[in-house]
Parts: sequence; structure tokens; C-alpha cells
Amino acid sequence: MKENAAGLQARARTYLDWAAAAVPDTASPDEAVYGNPSSLHAEGRRAREALDSARARCALVLGVPPETLYFTSGGTESNALALYSLLRRAGKGRLLYSAAEHPSVRENCHALEKLHVPASAIGVETDGRVSEASLSRALEKYPDTRLVAVMGVNNETGARMDIAALGSLLRSRGAETGRPVHFHSDLVQALGKVPVDIPAWDIDSASFSAHKLGGPRGIGLLYLRKPLQPLYSGGGQERGVRPGTENVQGALALASVLERRASPATVRLEEEKAGARLQYLLARLKKIDRVSCIPADRKAGDGRFSPWILQARARGVPGEVMARVLDSLGVAISTGAACSAASKQRPVLAAMGLDQSAQLEGFRISQGWSTDTTCMDALVSGIEKALVSL
Amino acid sequence: MKENAAGLQARARTYLDWAAAAVPDTASPDEAVYGNPSSLHAEGRRAREALDSARARCALVLGVPPETLYFTSGGTESNALALYSLLRRAGKGRLLYSAAEHPSVRENCHALEKLHVPASAIGVETDGRVSEASLSRALEKYPDTRLVAVMGVNNETGARMDIAALGSLLRSRGAETGRPVHFHSDLVQALGKVPVDIPAWDIDSASFSAHKLGGPRGIGLLYLRKPLQPLYSGGGQERGVRPGTENVQGALALASVLERRASPATVRLEEEKAGARLQYLLARLKKIDRVSCIPADRKAGDGRFSPWILQARARGVPGEVMARVLDSLGVAISTGAACSAASKQRPVLAAMGLDQSAQLEGFRISQGWSTDTTCMDALVSGIEKALVSL
Repeated sequence: MKENAAGLQARARTYLDWAAAAVPDTASPDEAVYGNPSSLHAEGRRAREALDSARARCALVLGVPPETLYFTSGGTESNALALYSLLRRAGKGRLLYSAAEHPSVRENCHALEKLHVPASAIGVETDGRVSEASLSRALEKYPDTRLVAVMGVNNETGARMDIAALGSLLRSRGAETGRPVHFHSDLVQALGKVPVDIPAWDIDSASFSAHKLGGPRGIGLLYLRKPLQPLYSGGGQERGVRPGTENVQGALALASVLERRASPATVRLEEEKAGARLQYLLARLKKIDRVSCIPADRKAGDGRFSPWILQARARGVPGEVMARVLDSLGVAISTGAACSAASKQRPVLAAMGLDQSAQLEGFRISQGWSTDTTCMDALVSGIEKALVSL
Repeated sequence: MKENAAGLQARARTYLDWAAAAVPDTASPDEAVYGNPSSLHAEGRRAREALDSARARCALVLGVPPETLYFTSGGTESNALALYSLLRRAGKGRLLYSAAEHPSVRENCHALEKLHVPASAIGVETDGRVSEASLSRALEKYPDTRLVAVMGVNNETGARMDIAALGSLLRSRGAETGRPVHFHSDLVQALGKVPVDIPAWDIDSASFSAHKLGGPRGIGLLYLRKPLQPLYSGGGQERGVRPGTENVQGALALASVLERRASPATVRLEEEKAGARLQYLLARLKKIDRVSCIPADRKAGDGRFSPWILQARARGVPGEVMARVLDSLGVAISTGAACSAASKQRPVLAAMGLDQSAQLEGFRISQGWSTDTTCMDALVSGIEKALVSL
């Protein structure tokens, strides 16, 4: 550790990788609670009250009943809990997942296949979105479908799925066939960035992470309309869905960050501000001949995308090289998901129909609450400098 | 939340439920790290270095290679990771678990049975320990055994297993039959309390939790001699064993608390101090006619038990009633595991051969680093007061 956070800031770094990790929101003045919420004594009851209050505060922000929310260790575990419940349910049934899902959904679908749960991908359109037509085709092809997983906002491209429309399609189809399908949505990149309306979207389960909102690592939420079979067992905490001594401090910090960043009014305001910054960035990028967006027709104000995430490319420059050169110029961006930064594979871009060279050229810019046009200027000037030598 | 921590302390509460939740060790001045360790830019590299340094510090305390340690969300998940790997291994094989295991082992064994992994309990002696004879009998009976789980220190009785002897028995048997057996040990209640020597004990995997040592919730460790098949998949973090954005801050806090509380020299010293306090307590409890230990022959200095945990009973008084009355007198204790405080079942005491009424009478006293004889006095005086009316 040669350099601390202050050191990095002193050198005026430009951080545009908020989709990988948000800059921590430091306003977390939660009082310390040390009892075990399962203990019956005063210390335990106090911890239980703190945990219940954290859950109620999260529920209020999300507009759902508190008993539908389960604290987990993060988005990855929340997704796993939803998917692996299929293993423990009676009868058989297929998993359908969009080809643009985060590895924590896609890789678990592959893992479940090895455990004899059939799983198939739903194709995405060239804009990276799951269309109703595509979902319909998949459901026709696989009448044994039991669970469908479609994320709210893609972490690499910002593609925003019409969860309400897809949910409504699933409901009406379930009503026709008499076989209801569980609808799961990974909302990790949606919460706090674009409007999220669980009651209106009529989904069965959803995943959330605190750290993407600037909260601490190691705490997330799983929304479950009805309780599911757990991934693993233990002391029965979180009504058996997620065992282990409850992370009360984490839950309180998550509640705080949700209140500060995910209330509908704040999200509308912040999304608008992010949209204006993206418009500014796109106007500047447009002037650089070799740079284009992925997909190529992406424009400012396009409702198909979250303004917080932009996938772009520079002709003839591998995204990884661009990211490295920008890093050396003090600008932090990434290629795709941080989770698979070491891999050359870009399955999301491949699913959108991009050829190999376009996939390799892709890089991701993701902004956050404290991003301003100065950051965008630093990025553009970095790209310009990089392109001189590349 | 009517009362804060300061309020509880101001009323001079006596906290003797450290096995459920330790009082936080506040000396955690870790610098903030916000990058995602999987990102390739400076912020990401800095987070990776911090995570690696946390792992190396933990490895030094535990005397194992850093690459054998995986950060998890806690003891429960660490146990689940070890056990569920059986699901994904080729071939069949039985799980053997001691009848005194924590619910996070026992309940997962039951869950795995439903997923067609055969599982059987190893009986414990009347002192709550797994003897070599008992393990031998179980191995004779179940030649298909593939994994054996025996905890280091029981969380309800303090019974201390001879992990070295059991491990050596398993090795020699594996050498005889040509079928090595994986030996897993839940060391959550052992670490920092009694000597833990992974290399000498020759175990294949072990679980640890930060919060039982006064560290934060939501972070733990899994030791794995060799990598295992993961419980669930995702972005490949922790070399695929435990996916999800790494909790760097939690890992640093865990490393700090391990350094402060789990080095061999500190453990020897603190165990001796805990032993002296227990001796003091036992001498005072002996004078109360209706109170006895579980098992009845437990004495101070008895190497079969950890001095940090004592199970006792008061004739004619349900343990739960004793805990409630003591709580009202300002003393926090519990019955068995906090995880199952709401349940009337006492499977660990039942496995020791105690009858129903003795099981119901059991209560647990668990001390910690800041416990002193004043706490013990408060407890004894509370029990005396309680017995006047009960």
C-alpha cells in the first residue's frame, strides 16, 4: 500500500468506475449495537430493535412490507439465494436468464445446470435489452420455465430493461397456462440510479447491494414477495432464508444510505443530473473521430439506458489498453464488470451481436453522485491524449 | 430503541453472553479503502493490496499460507461452503458430523440429506466431547464417509474436542483404506480463546468469525488446505470459492482483531486469565445448593473444557426463566446458542444424555476479555436473588 486515499485524491484522480465501487458516503453516524438479535436479554432485544428498525426504514424507501426484506451479504448472495431456491423446491422446472445478466446470475445458472436444473438464456436485442418479443419466444420454446431472471440495469452498458412490461407479460402468461413463473430481478445497478417500483413492477424477488450506493461492503438486501427455500441453513436468522449472526451495523448503514440516495424524489433529481452530465460527455465524445458508443445509436436522453453507465469504444484500441492508459493519466474507468476484469471475454457485448474486435474495444464509464463536468473534461482530455499515441 | 449502549452501561449491566456476541473491540483505525479489488486501475490495485495484506496478516497469526484463507461473510457461511462442496464433487459420499455441532453445521447436514447427500451424527460422550472411540465406531459403521465435521469448542458447554487426536485417527484410517476423508472443524468458539494450531492439527478446512473476537459482523474466514467447489458462483472473487465484491474494510478489521486477540502468546495468557476467573466463579457457585454444572463433574482447570464457556443448571428452574430473571437484575446470560434462543430444543444437551428436565434447566455463562471478578460477583448474587423467589 504505497498510497492512501488522501494521496490518490491529492493527485486529483478522476474516478469514473462507480458501477464497480461507489465512493463511500461517509455520513453514517450509526450508534454501535453489539448484542446478538437472537438473544433474549436487554442487549439482544436492543439489537433486534435496531435490526427491525433498519428493515422498516429500507421497506419505507422501497415501498414494500418490511417482512419481504432479508438482509444478506450483498447482491451476489441475494441473486444466489433466489436462484438456488429452485434446488430445494419440489418438482422440476427451468431457469431462464437474460444473456446480459451479471456473472452472479449467469454463472449460477451454469452451476445449477450441473446440478440438473435446466437453464437457458433469453437473447437480447442489439441495444442489450430483453424485449417482450424475445421473452415470449423463450417462454414458447421452454414451457417448463419456472423462474425468469432479468436485471433492471445492465452493469456494462447501462441498458435499462422494461421490468414492468416483462413482469406483466409473465403474469398474463402464467394466468393463461395456470403455471405461475417466478420473476427475479437483479436491481443492484438500478437502485438509487433510476426509478425502482417493486409494487408496480409485480416482481417476486429482487437483489440490492449497499456498497454500490456508497454504503459498506458485505451487506445487501433480498426482496422476496414470499419466503423461499434457503441456500444454506443455520441458526434460523432472517426467518431461515439467510442464516448467520445478523450484521446489525451493516443493516443500519444500508438503511441510512437507502434513505439518502434511493427515495423516489432523490432518484428523479439525481437521474436528471446524471443525464445532463452524460449529455455533456456525449457531446464532447462525438467530436472525437475514433470514439463511438455501444450501441452506436446511443444518444443523451434515450430512455432505454441508464445515464449513469456508458459503454463506448475507440477504433483500433483494445478497451483494456484504453483503461490502462487512462489510469496512468489519472482517470479510473474499466472495461466491463470489475468482477471479470481479468477475463478477455465480453459475453454481454457478444449477446448484443458485436463482433470480436468491437467487443475487445469496449470500455465502460460509470459516474456517481459527486461526478461533475470537470470529471468528464478530464476523461475526454485523457482519451484525446491516449489516442495520439495509440 | 429506547436505550443506547451508553445507557445500558450506565446502569452497570453485567454482560456474560460473549459466546453469542463479543463486545466490540473499538481499536480498529483502518484507513478507508473504496476501490473494487477486481478493478485494474490505481484505486482497484490499492484495494487489492489492502485485501492481500489483510489475508497475509491473518495467515501469519494462524500459521498457514495466505492462499489457504478465504474471506467469507462469517462462520455460518464458512461452514456452509465446506459442507456444500460435497454437492458439487464427483461421486457419492457420506457426511459425518458430531451430535454437538452448531446449527450452522447440523442444520446444513439435514438440508444436504434432502439433497441426497447421506449424513449421520457421531455420538458424544457425557462430557459433550467426541471421543476417538466414538469417531472410530462411526467410521466402521459408515465406510462411505467422505467428510467429517467436528467443532473445536462447543458453543453451549465449552467442551473442547481433541482435534489433533481425531485428525490423526482420520489420517491413519485414510492411509489404511486408501480413501482419504476431509476433516472440517468449526473453530468459531476456539479462536482467540484456546490454542488453535491448524498445521499441527492436520485439518482440511476450518471456519472463523470476526465478531466473536470483537470484530465487525459480516466478515469471517474459511481455511481450506485445497480449494473446494464453491457454494454459489459469481464474479470469481476469492478464487471462485466465495464470490461477491470483496469486503476489504471487513477483512482489514478481521486482520486487526486477529492480531490483537488470536496470536498464540495472547491466547495462552488470556486463557489463563479466563481460567482463573472461572475458578473463582465455580468456587462461588459451589456454595449455592441448587446450582450444578453441566456436566456435573466439571471442575476448574479441567482441560476437557474451554474456560470461556460454562453450562450450568439450577434445580427446578427452567434455564429460560433464569436468563429472564437475571436479565431483569442486569445480568445478560443465555440458555444455549443465541441462534436458537427461541427454540425449546437442546439437541447438544440431549446428545450428552441429559434427561428432559436437565436439558430445560441448562443455562450458559460465557465470559470475554473484559470480564472480571466483579462480573462474576454480580452473576452469583443475581442467581442467589433469583433462587429466593423461584
